[in-house]
Amino acid sequence: MNFLEERIVKDGVVKEGNILKVDSFLNHQMDINLFDQMGEEFKRRFADKPINKIVTIEASGIGIACIVARHFGVPVVFAKKTQSVNIDGEVYVAEVESFTHKCKNQVIVSKKFLGPDDHVLVIDDFLANGCALQGLISIVAQAGGTVEGIGIAVEKGFQQGGRIIRNLGYQLESLAIVEGMDAETGEVHFREQ
Amino acid sequence: MNFLEERIVKDGVVKEGNILKVDSFLNHQMDINLFDQMGEEFKRRFADKPINKIVTIEASGIGIACIVARHFGVPVVFAKKTQSVNIDGEVYVAEVESFTHKCKNQVIVSKKFLGPDDHVLVIDDFLANGCALQGLISIVAQAGGTVEGIGIAVEKGFQQGGRIIRNLGYQLESLAIVEGMDAETGEVHFREQ
Repeated sequence: MNFLEERIVKDGVVKEGNILKVDSFLNHQMDINLFDQMGEEFKRRFADKPINKIVTIEASGIGIACIVARHFGVPVVFAKKTQSVNIDGEVYVAEVESFTHKCKNQVIVSKKFLGPDDHVLVIDDFLANGCALQGLISIVAQAGGTVEGIGIAVEKGFQQGGRIIRNLGYQLESLAIVEGMDAETGEVHFREQ
Repeated sequence: MNFLEERIVKDGVVKEGNILKVDSFLNHQMDINLFDQMGEEFKRRFADKPINKIVTIEASGIGIACIVARHFGVPVVFAKKTQSVNIDGEVYVAEVESFTHKCKNQVIVSKKFLGPDDHVLVIDDFLANGCALQGLISIVAQAGGTVEGIGIAVEKGFQQGGRIIRNLGYQLESLAIVEGMDAETGEVHFREQ
């Protein structure tokens, strides 16, 4: 087990309905030392890529993205969720369905901050069905930029998001891939990487 | 002028209606090196405080809070905006009015992540009327914790938020306090600190 898998076993909480709560260290309270380790590991895995920007989505992706960005020496752009297209500026738009909140959101990025010269590492905390990720990839494509890679903290390997993204040919690196969990015993099973 | 004031003069954009756009480096695209300088400066200004946690509010406070947290060696907890109280867990709640988005939000923090032993540095990107900040202070108070200080990137000194918070006796440190701006010339005037 790597450092993140160990932390999930130690502090993650499994709930009924394949819910894995990691809010004590990942997406409500945030362990910055852990994020630093994640940044180091992503830097190792994407060492050969000419990354000049990190793109993430609000809210819980932002903290990880910022700490990871220190390891790459690049700025972060975060996509904003909005109920209606911001008509006040020129923006790229993608539609993202949220299963947690049971709603559709538009996510936007200002055209000022993404363009054809951008070689992007996409960062997010969770990957399940992949809707948020597809929205971010779409936005980078609209800008004419290149997705050099995708770094995820926790992937739910039993949902389809990761498979679709890998089938599309992207280098998707998830630090922990959960294959299954048991709410009764609290056990979490990870994919061997 | 300090490093943040210089950056605002260089890359900030003044718009009609006392709007200062700093989205190219602070709250849409994020300059991580700048955030690192801010972390260093906050560490200097709050050097004597026994800070063991940083509290911020989603979304644009999170990036700054995480980079600042590295300088203090503490975790970050971010308050989540929600339209309705999350009944699925025990949370502290505060009501926050947003003038930008013209709506009232409830912000919540899980009771698991704030308590009487917490000595909190509150971090946010902007301070204007102070509603968000009052909500965060209320949440720390509900938890029985102590607000050791408040660190803000950009304060609009001509709005009342900063004065109210200082009158209440808090150590509020804003790295740039904007006293006025001129949309025609693009000039920004800062308070001498």
